[in-house]
Amino acid sequence: MQALPPGSTIGILGGGQLGRMLILAAARLGFKCHVYTDVVGTACDVAASSMIGAFDDGAKLAAFAADVDVVTYEFENVPLSAAAAVERIKPVRPGSKSLEASQDRLVEKRFISELSIPIAPFAVIDSAADFDAAIGTVGLPAILKTRRLGYDGKGQVRIANAEEMASAFDENGRGASVFESVVEFACEVSVLVVRNAAGETRFYDIALNHHEGGILRTSSVPSNLPPPHQARARQIAEQIATALDHVGVLAVEMFYVGGEHSEPLIVNEIAPRVHNSGHWTIDACQVSQFENHMRAVVGWPLGTTDRHSDAQMSNLVGEEANDWRRLATEPGVCLHLYGKSEARPGRKMGHFTRLKAQSSDG
Amino acid sequence: MQALPPGSTIGILGGGQLGRMLILAAARLGFKCHVYTDVVGTACDVAASSMIGAFDDGAKLAAFAADVDVVTYEFENVPLSAAAAVERIKPVRPGSKSLEASQDRLVEKRFISELSIPIAPFAVIDSAADFDAAIGTVGLPAILKTRRLGYDGKGQVRIANAEEMASAFDENGRGASVFESVVEFACEVSVLVVRNAAGETRFYDIALNHHEGGILRTSSVPSNLPPPHQARARQIAEQIATALDHVGVLAVEMFYVGGEHSEPLIVNEIAPRVHNSGHWTIDACQVSQFENHMRAVVGWPLGTTDRHSDAQMSNLVGEEANDWRRLATEPGVCLHLYGKSEARPGRKMGHFTRLKAQSSDG
Repeated sequence: MQALPPGSTIGILGGGQLGRMLILAAARLGFKCHVYTDVVGTACDVAASSMIGAFDDGAKLAAFAADVDVVTYEFENVPLSAAAAVERIKPVRPGSKSLEASQDRLVEKRFISELSIPIAPFAVIDSAADFDAAIGTVGLPAILKTRRLGYDGKGQVRIANAEEMASAFDENGRGASVFESVVEFACEVSVLVVRNAAGETRFYDIALNHHEGGILRTSSVPSNLPPPHQARARQIAEQIATALDHVGVLAVEMFYVGGEHSEPLIVNEIAPRVHNSGHWTIDACQVSQFENHMRAVVGWPLGTTDRHSDAQMSNLVGEEANDWRRLATEPGVCLHLYGKSEARPGRKMGHFTRLKAQSSDG
Repeated sequence: MQALPPGSTIGILGGGQLGRMLILAAARLGFKCHVYTDVVGTACDVAASSMIGAFDDGAKLAAFAADVDVVTYEFENVPLSAAAAVERIKPVRPGSKSLEASQDRLVEKRFISELSIPIAPFAVIDSAADFDAAIGTVGLPAILKTRRLGYDGKGQVRIANAEEMASAFDENGRGASVFESVVEFACEVSVLVVRNAAGETRFYDIALNHHEGGILRTSSVPSNLPPPHQARARQIAEQIATALDHVGVLAVEMFYVGGEHSEPLIVNEIAPRVHNSGHWTIDACQVSQFENHMRAVVGWPLGTTDRHSDAQMSNLVGEEANDWRRLATEPGVCLHLYGKSEARPGRKMGHFTRLKAQSSDG
């Protein structure tokens, strides 16, 4: 694909805050965005136009595709059939391989495993009949996760014994699941790589993540990981991006288990899109993850991933966003609110980034 | 007015690139924007909704005002009657005093003069009968400017003798004009002050401006003006903002004539809005002129005006914007394109900001 000129229209599947921030970045470069979503979302407020339709409405998806120049997505649970319907008419970036590998935990784990990249030991659970063998293989404690549609810790239950396994499986709706070993880690990090169609890659500085209750609370740079382990983390992310022939930003979440292990990093999960752990790039970098994703999608040259400041991004979850008045005056704080009307518990309402003068990261 | 909470709707009169950048800034804070414009503009692509209507359509303006929580404007040629129609229903910020003082050069000059702030000597031209007296008062060379609707050097002609005066007056449509002395200046600077309804003010670093053919080409920080003259420039801007009871960003363009004069700075013109000479604040500051304008408009606390980098903003005029491909890869360049479809000569199509490590400004 030739580079799309400014003024072109980028289609986005999904209407949430990631779509909103993608649109704000694309608008700076002179692009129009057209959103397709099954429920009105916060991206619609800044889109040039929005289409509300089901992800199985092939005719509507085709009309959407006809109206834009290229299509991307802001969440990985876009049905493959929807992506395929669009792809028949316009390029979809990242491609369906990235989507397929990241919307089913079993497919994802097998894919990463086949690349000889370390992941936590796991077993497949299709029914209660698989419990004993899974516990035998993986050991306890472990985590039962639904194969599909989990996010922010949803569909994940920590299991200490066989009884908990049965009730967790019931609680999750007895759907196809994976059962994976709990990794004892020193810290969690994520690597954001952006890759263009020519196969060039750039990396943002590795972020140190802190989760609570399955929800990301903070991401910080620098991570202070030892430089050889940072290099290894980038190598892993690049290997995954290349294997997917990924175009756009790819986020790879990893557990850092420390240098005393032969493999200091274990991949937890991947997301074929801009990622919450990269929101600090809006304020600390000249070119954010959102702009670089869109640059890759429209076939533009990638922008720098350098940062000018140290940063800590904190999510505003549920009623925490009501604290905007204080945050708006705190020195060094860049505030971002997503324009969601209802501050439900566990809902990501916004984030803020604290900037500090830059230190080096190894 | 109480601070408007995120999720509120800000109305914007005008649909150009300043409106577009105001919307992008407001969206980051969770606000929706509703544009009222007489011609579809580039702001409409990112607005939550747009209304196309004439500025003398009182009923439509009233419907617009009813639909929003507060109103601002992105150009100073909004008719006073339109602002008044809106103000009967919702607060308009900045107020009509700011609008009145800046849309007519004669009113503007008299207003600034009455504050005992230095401006270039001027005379009023209502008809050809005023030529001789004007030349006698002001001297030659001088500049003939239409009182209304001039921007980017339009409606301004440099006059060396009486014959040129007659043809320039004809060329400008024989409308009410002012005739002002050419100031011999060392450089042109602008001061951007943001003021809230409580009368608090903050200043961005003074920018050094370079114009060609009446169009701003570059704005740079630091300006390297001597610190006492910077202080004087801020004092002048604050005095004007206070006299207008201005709420939002106010730009004051000044000629710097140098320290050997009793008054080192002469005011050229004011704009009651975000300004082209402040576009560098998007990339070099934590809180841009656009965000701070919107903060003042919605009654939020003002944000910091500190900058983290030195910066030079360059406008992309007409076909210069076709150079986006090269600019997109140049290190240190932040590119902004406005999404205008037609690159007409003299039309501002975008800008870019070159960032450098910060030096101090006096």
